[in-house]
Amino acid sequence: MKVGDIGEFALLEHIKTLVERLQVGLDSLKGIITGIGDDAAAWRMNEGIYLACTDGLVDGVHFNSGLTPWRAVGWKALAASLSDIAAMGGAPCYCLVSLALPRDIAVEEVEDIYQGLLSLANDTGVAVIGGNTGASSVVSVNTTVLGYIGPGSDNLPMTRGEARPGDQIAVTGYLGLAALGLQVLGHAKWSGLDSEAEELLGRRLYYPQPRISEGMLLRRIGVRAAIDVSDGLVSDLDRLCQASHVSARVGVEDLPLHPLITSMGWKAVEAALTGGEDYELVFTAPLELIERARTALSLPITVIGDITEACAERVSVQDTRGNMLLLDKGGWQHFVS
Amino acid sequence: MKVGDIGEFALLEHIKTLVERLQVGLDSLKGIITGIGDDAAAWRMNEGIYLACTDGLVDGVHFNSGLTPWRAVGWKALAASLSDIAAMGGAPCYCLVSLALPRDIAVEEVEDIYQGLLSLANDTGVAVIGGNTGASSVVSVNTTVLGYIGPGSDNLPMTRGEARPGDQIAVTGYLGLAALGLQVLGHAKWSGLDSEAEELLGRRLYYPQPRISEGMLLRRIGVRAAIDVSDGLVSDLDRLCQASHVSARVGVEDLPLHPLITSMGWKAVEAALTGGEDYELVFTAPLELIERARTALSLPITVIGDITEACAERVSVQDTRGNMLLLDKGGWQHFVS
Repeated sequence: MKVGDIGEFALLEHIKTLVERLQVGLDSLKGIITGIGDDAAAWRMNEGIYLACTDGLVDGVHFNSGLTPWRAVGWKALAASLSDIAAMGGAPCYCLVSLALPRDIAVEEVEDIYQGLLSLANDTGVAVIGGNTGASSVVSVNTTVLGYIGPGSDNLPMTRGEARPGDQIAVTGYLGLAALGLQVLGHAKWSGLDSEAEELLGRRLYYPQPRISEGMLLRRIGVRAAIDVSDGLVSDLDRLCQASHVSARVGVEDLPLHPLITSMGWKAVEAALTGGEDYELVFTAPLELIERARTALSLPITVIGDITEACAERVSVQDTRGNMLLLDKGGWQHFVS
Repeated sequence: MKVGDIGEFALLEHIKTLVERLQVGLDSLKGIITGIGDDAAAWRMNEGIYLACTDGLVDGVHFNSGLTPWRAVGWKALAASLSDIAAMGGAPCYCLVSLALPRDIAVEEVEDIYQGLLSLANDTGVAVIGGNTGASSVVSVNTTVLGYIGPGSDNLPMTRGEARPGDQIAVTGYLGLAALGLQVLGHAKWSGLDSEAEELLGRRLYYPQPRISEGMLLRRIGVRAAIDVSDGLVSDLDRLCQASHVSARVGVEDLPLHPLITSMGWKAVEAALTGGEDYELVFTAPLELIERARTALSLPITVIGDITEACAERVSVQDTRGNMLLLDKGGWQHFVS
């Protein structure tokens, strides 16, 4: 059985089971709040809660070095990990960077990767404190981010496993912009979009904003379940539902589409449902908490559906008449082509 | 200018300078004890000291998947990071694993990578708490290990920057075994070694033992300067001297060669001087501290030379008459062929 036959999610389940089976009784497991299977690992130590996560970008898989500016590669590599910390409601503090580089990459290009990464690190107060470089046939940028949640009555991370039937599902910002950016990149004339829209899509594709302060605020006001949209709304919501043993109904008319791209019609809807790398937060909570979040945050907060008891379809997308939509593709999964 | 033209060490210096120039005044920098340029990053937080480091193995660069058992790939990937924590005198606690995998690798092979990694993790009490998988054309295994040094009067990590003129240079265990293992692998008949020696070399190449308890003990008895032998003694000692602004004299007759491989003569000496991946600790201290370490540890501790004021040659290797030996290759540096 090849990895490509079972896909990324099944492989991760496989690994999780193996680790749980082989690691029993370790002292260091005692403080663990979340291990493999959430956005970030979380553990309690000396009153506080520490968070750690790692993410990687590989040339030819997550980006195409012929098209993507090196600055954007560095920025996105850090954004992916910061977003995982944001999904737990933590404050990111430190970053380690592991670079694999072909011998013929220019030093200036490596500097550009770092410039992009450091630009986002400075914006978010994250210190780059270490890393590693090594040779490889393809560029890959791996970032590990360490985060923190201080002591206090509210010091529990948000997790994927805390969604409850009756919760509303809400999302920060707009969905689908990064995926649309990738589609129209270099095909601006075909898209029929004006330059303002194009600029927006390029910015969201190359320089996504992890929702760190939003995640911290959601956690502090009492939101308990969240995930970031890295692989696509339906796909990420599916993981949240799986971890919480619930199902989700999403209203297709309720998806937050940016005003500048509504002219793209169904393409925009599809991108909002299945496009990856938006790095918005999806969270579930009773409506009054969502209202509190909406008042406190400057970013739009949109209710897109609700959580139900677990049923046959883990995530169903419905039109206004309650008809279920069928999707070709539930998001972006590695290995499966 | 290509990365291959300047080499790994110059590239790291480049990156370090860039990060220091661009990251100024961040709050999170305040607690930093060591950042980029030591074995692990270390920072103070809530009384304790936290350590983090990351290391990666790439197929075709650090190992050859046609020759190396997958279990050994997992083991070595974790050993490299654990050894960095050991060099600071910390206790490793948690590990994150980032795997890049081609679609056609067998699920059983991925399991073998994890089995090897978890085997060492269990031996050392390290919990695997998270990670990431993604597609790539070549297998790479990235490990990030988090370590800890508890509060107390001795709670300072060992670093590369604390070697002082007059210090003796000592090393744990034996040197050169991993490099010899790589050389004789598959050429057992040429090596003239017996099966016991071959078994030793294979074990040290594939399943190195990071010197964790040794590092913790050295730190506790007051040793202040250490580095692990990952790229080769001369090369790693060079980095320690550079960070400490001192020079080192190593006596070629003093190198700890394992009794089973002394028959290999100059080949063994060369491997001890420049062979990588031994993951022993090199440390410097006044002789009385080294004597204390020798009494407390079961592993052999060998004095191989001493630290002097900085002079033209950062690391000189001398025979018993004080003649300097010239080395072709100061260790294993990435990018430079």
